[in-house]
Amino acid sequence: MDLNADLGEGFGIWRLGDDEALLDVITSANVACGFHAGDPSTMRRVCAAAAERGVAVGAQVGYRDLAGFGRRHIAYDFTELRDEVTYQLAALDGFCRLYRTRVRYLKPHGALYHAAATDETQAAALVAAVNDVDHELPLLCSPGSVLAQLAVGAGLRVVAEGFADRGYLPTGALTPRTHPGALLTDPDAVAAQAVRLATERTVVAVDGTVVACPVESICLHGDTPGAVAAATAVRAALTAAGVTLTPFA
Amino acid sequence: MDLNADLGEGFGIWRLGDDEALLDVITSANVACGFHAGDPSTMRRVCAAAAERGVAVGAQVGYRDLAGFGRRHIAYDFTELRDEVTYQLAALDGFCRLYRTRVRYLKPHGALYHAAATDETQAAALVAAVNDVDHELPLLCSPGSVLAQLAVGAGLRVVAEGFADRGYLPTGALTPRTHPGALLTDPDAVAAQAVRLATERTVVAVDGTVVACPVESICLHGDTPGAVAAATAVRAALTAAGVTLTPFA
Amino acid sequence: MDLNADLGEGFGIWRLGDDEALLDVITSANVACGFHAGDPSTMRRVCAAAAERGVAVGAQVGYRDLAGFGRRHIAYDFTELRDEVTYQLAALDGFCRLYRTRVRYLKPHGALYHAAATDETQAAALVAAVNDVDHELPLLCSPGSVLAQLAVGAGLRVVAEGFADRGYLPTGALTPRTHPGALLTDPDAVAAQAVRLATERTVVAVDGTVVACPVESICLHGDTPGAVAAATAVRAALTAAGVTLTPFA
Amino acid sequence: MDLNADLGEGFGIWRLGDDEALLDVITSANVACGFHAGDPSTMRRVCAAAAERGVAVGAQVGYRDLAGFGRRHIAYDFTELRDEVTYQLAALDGFCRLYRTRVRYLKPHGALYHAAATDETQAAALVAAVNDVDHELPLLCSPGSVLAQLAVGAGLRVVAEGFADRGYLPTGALTPRTHPGALLTDPDAVAAQAVRLATERTVVAVDGTVVACPVESICLHGDTPGAVAAATAVRAALTAAGVTLTPFA
Repeated sequence: MDLNADLGEGFGIWRLGDDEALLDVITSANVACGFHAGDPSTMRRVCAAAAERGVAVGAQVGYRDLAGFGRRHIAYDFTELRDEVTYQLAALDGFCRLYRTRVRYLKPHGALYHAAATDETQAAALVAAVNDVDHELPLLCSPGSVLAQLAVGAGLRVVAEGFADRGYLPTGALTPRTHPGALLTDPDAVAAQAVRLATERTVVAVDGTVVACPVESICLHGDTPGAVAAATAVRAALTAAGVTLTPFA
Repeated sequence: MDLNADLGEGFGIWRLGDDEALLDVITSANVACGFHAGDPSTMRRVCAAAAERGVAVGAQVGYRDLAGFGRRHIAYDFTELRDEVTYQLAALDGFCRLYRTRVRYLKPHGALYHAAATDETQAAALVAAVNDVDHELPLLCSPGSVLAQLAVGAGLRVVAEGFADRGYLPTGALTPRTHPGALLTDPDAVAAQAVRLATERTVVAVDGTVVACPVESICLHGDTPGAVAAATAVRAALTAAGVTLTPFA
Repeated sequence: MDLNADLGEGFGIWRLGDDEALLDVITSANVACGFHAGDPSTMRRVCAAAAERGVAVGAQVGYRDLAGFGRRHIAYDFTELRDEVTYQLAALDGFCRLYRTRVRYLKPHGALYHAAATDETQAAALVAAVNDVDHELPLLCSPGSVLAQLAVGAGLRVVAEGFADRGYLPTGALTPRTHPGALLTDPDAVAAQAVRLATERTVVAVDGTVVACPVESICLHGDTPGAVAAATAVRAALTAAGVTLTPFA
Repeated sequence: MDLNADLGEGFGIWRLGDDEALLDVITSANVACGFHAGDPSTMRRVCAAAAERGVAVGAQVGYRDLAGFGRRHIAYDFTELRDEVTYQLAALDGFCRLYRTRVRYLKPHGALYHAAATDETQAAALVAAVNDVDHELPLLCSPGSVLAQLAVGAGLRVVAEGFADRGYLPTGALTPRTHPGALLTDPDAVAAQAVRLATERTVVAVDGTVVACPVESICLHGDTPGAVAAATAVRAALTAAGVTLTPFA
């Protein structure tokens, strides 16, 4: 199983999350590329540290919106989004090459992640960018999203991710954040869901039914207080359960 | 001889210069990379058009200063500048690759061009970025600049450029803009200086002496009224004099 | 009748439209405030020139999106938008005060103008900003928009604007741009619609019916080729028809 | 005596320093205005909280450089800097007015603070902005700086600030950061210097001589670990010594 988290989300003097600590826990780093967060020196530092530890680097591409941290939907048109994604991807890859590695996957950030789950134009722009740049580059996203469908249709590899700390509906979709049970806060429950995802590719939905959840990666959060401790606990539980942790890419 | 000019210097809705027209005149395009000017869709469009015409694409890297168009000196430290240059270079190269070409050289823009002529820290940051990314990538800059010296010292290829429309001192340096004779405005004089540069690698200095000026490229301006007409006239004069125009890179 | 147009829409080195020429035609200037376009020196220059000519200055507030010129919808939350509008309004007012005038109205720009016509959250944010800053400040917007409704409900003055060069539906709404007749291109037809708006407060809809259109201002476009000529023709037609042109504010 | 510190230095999701805690210690808040740090919602929040506590709000104007936090010198020309300062000042004042207060002084930030100490153009731009906006507005800056000289020459009020935790030369200038004794780290020494500044308007220089230091405000740092504790200790020492703490403005 793969563990991914967002890294390099500071900008200039401002920091967010503990990149160094998370790099010792995860196997794939979603690195911000300068549009919603991230600056060139941070990108370089994260690429160097990831390469040293064998952590795979993914391009976490986002909207051009530092003020909103890429969390506000922006009505991009196809061409603008395709080209901004290409730009971010290429810039991050430039730093990876310095450390004899490459960008190994793409994952959209924040509001772009959500838009790409339902909006055909924005999903198609992501697919076009990946297709143009490197047909072999996997897309890390939600299974069942429009992005996943379009990517598969274009012959791209899609890697599905699950969440150890989010509730699931019987349909296999995430419990909306406005509903009870959307967020798992008990560390034991989080660890148990991670182990179940890794060993059985299932989750126990909010109504108690067991649902298939064929994911190749588990997404951990990095920018909340206690994030590193929670991520470390998930890793420990997985290791104790005999799960091998390794980048999917 | 090579003819270079700045291209892709718009941003979003705003345009500057006539990229299409200039691409029919020059052999090397200094393409803005998004920090002082340029946006991803413009970068892509210019790379596509340049590739189609066999015009070489160079990365015109600049300070992060859209409001000042990169024309105000900024006291970058070494690391920040090296990494911002690497980022810009890699992003532009991403677009070049889409059209089966590559960034073929680097040229600093505006205040960075001037800083790199005298400031060791900033010149060294440029050299380090090129050295890290691709030791074979030439630097297009002023002969005699600190940048040229450090680049040669690091084993990089330096390509010197001259100006058809600037006056020269007997030392071979440009006549400062505050002095009389800094700017040649007579089209015949500009054309004559271009032909002399291309055929004899000399200029007639402001005091009438003939000075060696061993340049491999002539820089044309693109963002002034009449720029395209002036560039076209230089090209015509060179062609009439039997000079072959071809990218240096 | 009042004539309004967008001014000060350059940024740094980049220009858009001919501010000086338009200031001789219009009576109200919608001045960009630095978020979607406009820089402090441009804002100051336009305020000075407007004050000198007795042209009223309005704050044309927009999304924080230079790359998209404020034309892409952004999903702001209430607080962020209210505070960004307050910031822009206050900044422009600072320049007006230097020339012994004040911001006399607010008009949203681009995608914010469109969002405020239908989106309660964004319309409410605009109303809250105006209410907080100056309860007497009029809002220039589309009659029938959610913004107009909320503003009236909050006791603010709403000034409706019409368009000389846009087709109208029998309902009084604008003909959507995707429909035939959305844009009037014949100069005589544009002039005639302006005169009818000014003298009768009606338009002839696309189906030939005469519809009430009780506007206090006519919006002229400034950033297209031929914009100044078109605006001048409208002004000439209005003057010939005996219409007095004066700021609404 | 007045105690001032920098506040509102976050941007979007990113935070810096503990504004709430510092507001209980200081009497004057230097509030970032959005160019080097600060966003409209943060500015509003700080203005509201400062007004509630009777803390004076000052405009901490800076270079347009979020990536460098305003700490890199930028070679602005006079007009650009004057107008950007006017813009920032007016924007912050807009938020102050919402809470029935006003911007009570101006203090330049970071590299602009340093430039204004020696660079006539940049100092003159600050003086011109204050002069244009409000001739009564004091400037908080280093005694002996070019800014102080030009401001006094223009008839503006200059308020000198001292530092509890910086060493002084016998000339009354700060010990350069590259020299030993530049920074006082012993809490007792810091408290003692604060009390001496407040009660005697002197400091003990690095060579042991007592030097006049006629300051009206002491600058506390807010963005380092332990900043709040250090600021609280200085306040406690001053209060214990019978010093009344009140805004200078």
